[in-house]
Order: sequence, then C-alpha cells, then structure tokens
Amino acid sequence: MSIRIGMGVDFHQLTEGRDLWLGGVKIPHSKGALGHSDADVLLHAICDALLGAACLGDIGVHFPDTDNAFKNIDSKILLSKTAELIKTKGYSIINIDTSLCLQAPKIKPYIVSMQQTIAGILGLSENDISIKATTTEKMGFVGREEGLMAYATVLLQSL
Amino acid sequence: MSIRIGMGVDFHQLTEGRDLWLGGVKIPHSKGALGHSDADVLLHAICDALLGAACLGDIGVHFPDTDNAFKNIDSKILLSKTAELIKTKGYSIINIDTSLCLQAPKIKPYIVSMQQTIAGILGLSENDISIKATTTEKMGFVGREEGLMAYATVLLQSL
Amino acid sequence: MSIRIGMGVDFHQLTEGRDLWLGGVKIPHSKGALGHSDADVLLHAICDALLGAACLGDIGVHFPDTDNAFKNIDSKILLSKTAELIKTKGYSIINIDTSLCLQAPKIKPYIVSMQQTIAGILGLSENDISIKATTTEKMGFVGREEGLMAYATVLLQSL
Repeated sequence: MSIRIGMGVDFHQLTEGRDLWLGGVKIPHSKGALGHSDADVLLHAICDALLGAACLGDIGVHFPDTDNAFKNIDSKILLSKTAELIKTKGYSIINIDTSLCLQAPKIKPYIVSMQQTIAGILGLSENDISIKATTTEKMGFVGREEGLMAYATVLLQSL
Repeated sequence: MSIRIGMGVDFHQLTEGRDLWLGGVKIPHSKGALGHSDADVLLHAICDALLGAACLGDIGVHFPDTDNAFKNIDSKILLSKTAELIKTKGYSIINIDTSLCLQAPKIKPYIVSMQQTIAGILGLSENDISIKATTTEKMGFVGREEGLMAYATVLLQSL
Repeated sequence: MSIRIGMGVDFHQLTEGRDLWLGGVKIPHSKGALGHSDADVLLHAICDALLGAACLGDIGVHFPDTDNAFKNIDSKILLSKTAELIKTKGYSIINIDTSLCLQAPKIKPYIVSMQQTIAGILGLSENDISIKATTTEKMGFVGREEGLMAYATVLLQSL
C-alpha cells in the first residue's frame, strides 16, 4: 500500500446579503461568505487537501473563479468532481480532519449534518470525516468577523 | 495496520497578569495567555489534532469553556483525558509535530522540557514529540504580541 | 515500515528592493520577501516540515538568522542540508504538499519550475511535490500585501 498526505487552507470574506454555506450545509447567520462559487470555505479546503495529496494542482486550477461555469456553483459539485479526479489517478481516501476558524455563529449543531453530507459525496463513513471548530479569540480578520478560514488534512492510499 | 491523520490549530490572546503556559511548561514572560483554562495553546492544538484524527469532535465539545470544572484547569489534565479518549477508541499515537507561532519570548530553552512533559503524559518517546517555533515577522496579531497560535499534526494507528 | 508526519509554516514580510524567491525560483514582482536568507517562504516551510517529521528541531535551530554564514543564503542550500539531516537519521520522503498564501503575483506559471527545482534537490519525482496557492481574499497582512506565508506537510518513512 502506498500512502500520501495532503493539506488545504481556504479563506473567504463574510458579507451581508449572502448565504453561509459550510461543509455543504446552509447555516442561518446574518452574514454569508463572499466568493465566485457558494464560497464554502470548508469544502474548498477539503478539495485542496485532496488535490494536493494526489499532486493534481489546486482548486483554482480545476475550478477557476474566472470561469462562468462555476459562478455561484454549489461546492458539493466541486467536491464530487475532485473525488472523481483523485479516484481516476488511483487514490482512495483514508480519513479527513478539518478545522473551521470563525468567530460566529456556533456551528456545533450542524457538524453531524456536514459530516453526513461530505461522507455521502465521498462514499466514506462519517467516522472518516472530522470537523472541528475554533474561534480566533476575537483576533485578526476572523476575530473581527470580516472573514473565516478553514484547514483540512487528508491521507490517501493507492487503490 | 490502519493509520489516520489529524491536525489542530489554536489561538489565545496575550495579556498582562496571567502566566504563560506552553507545552505544559510555565515560561517566564511579561504576558500570559488568556483563556478559561490555563490557555496552553500548544497542548490545546495537540488535543484537537488527536481528537480530530480519532473523529471524536473537538476540545470545545469535550472540555467546554462554559463548564466551571475546567476553569483555570491545567491543560496537562486535558491532554491526559484526550489520550484516554483516543486509546478507548482503539488508537495509539505514531508521532506529533507542532509549530508555535509567537513573536516573543524565545522558547528554545524550554523545548526539551515541553517534549519531556508531553511525552510523559502520552507514554511516548521524546523523539515522537516535535516542537518547532517561529515568529510571524512582526505581522498580524501574533506579530503585534496581542496573541499567539499553535498548529499540531498527528498520525494515529489502530492498536 | 515506519511512517511519520511533519508540518511547517513560515512567514515573511514583503518589501520593495528585494527579489522574490518562492520554491527556489525567482519570481518577477515589484516586491520581494524580507529575511536573513533569501527569505524563500515555501522552501522554509518545507524544511520545517521535514525537520519536524524527523524530530530534529526547526529551521531556526539549524540555520539561525543570527549566523552570518546564512546571510542572504540561497534557501535551496538550506533544503539540501535539511534533506541530508533527515537521511542521516534514516528517513526518506514519501510526499510533500504545500500551500502558498499570497495576494499577488499569480504564481501558477512558475509552479512546474518550483516542483522541478525541489524534486531535483530532494531526489524525488515531481509527482511527489505538490504546490498549491491561494490568496487570503484581501484580508489580513497577506491580503494587504504586507507579507506572505506558506504551509507544508510531509510524510516520511524509515529507509
């Protein structure tokens, strides 16, 4: 068995008048994330971790924010396409661990739903999709609620 | 053998009138980290990496900062409890690598002591606990010494 | 086979009158990264990830910025020395995944050259060196183009 590591990080601004999508789930909040797609910072970090582990470039290479095909696209579609890319290259996913950094809202009530959504897309068990959350203790652009960021790490193995 | 990845990140404000605990060691400094517990950002990042790899939620789920039981608690106790949780789920630790991001003070003189402390709690060799440090080159809230952050990555294996 | 994880993070200020070296490649830009060495944030993050996985301390321990021997040094030399250190300890590299966080310039045209450079130094295939890039969506010190940062993750195995 051959094994590989990947890590992704993503950032989005928060703004009024947008929906907040995190981990494929719509979260009730006064602000949403700004981006060309639905700006799901968690799914984007996971896509980048998967692409990185498979040495397939990054999310900007595969789904450029200058391409109208991806305008306001549901990031679950991007995750599904990413899963196809790594499968085609002969890899399967061992597990994914993620950290969402945001000051508000509390996302704990939505974590199981996010795990189910992501596991469903990737054909994995929910036990292989970890979603953690932390504030930045009111520091920086995340702490001022100007934006949010997410980290994802992943292990792949050759099929 | 089954193997899993985890990653944790943590942030704390620095403030006068608090002790600075890092990696289970008290560091002489003009400021300490603010938090509900002793605010040991390095041990918290390690706890989150371990919990994430085992898909056991995050440090906020197990040791909520709204619970008086954890008020000013020594984070070495939280690390010990975390180690029990992952062991109960059937995992053991392969190795841990960490990065502390802080502008001051220099922590190099304390790293061996931190490694010994953490290795002791987890029942590992010091060679399996890596602690690195970097400044942020005076940029951002870390660079302005308003706070500090830590990253931890970990590999687990099934017992 | 024994396997180990490492992760590195590095930060540098951007300033006029310096060259911008990233991944061992000189990138045309109005600003360069400030540092004691050539300030190649990507190679430094990779060095730290490798050292961390091998539990060999950090880049500041091996190549201190107070040592004139490393003044303006080409970070490719530091990466080569780091590779020797981990090989001497009995480890070889499985794969490396990295993320560069910078607002400008676009580095996509230089990624293949960076992969070739790093793979050449480490004696690996380009398929084992992943380089991804993201902006921080104009937020924070990276978004204001005051600086840039890089993350690297790595898996090592015992020879």
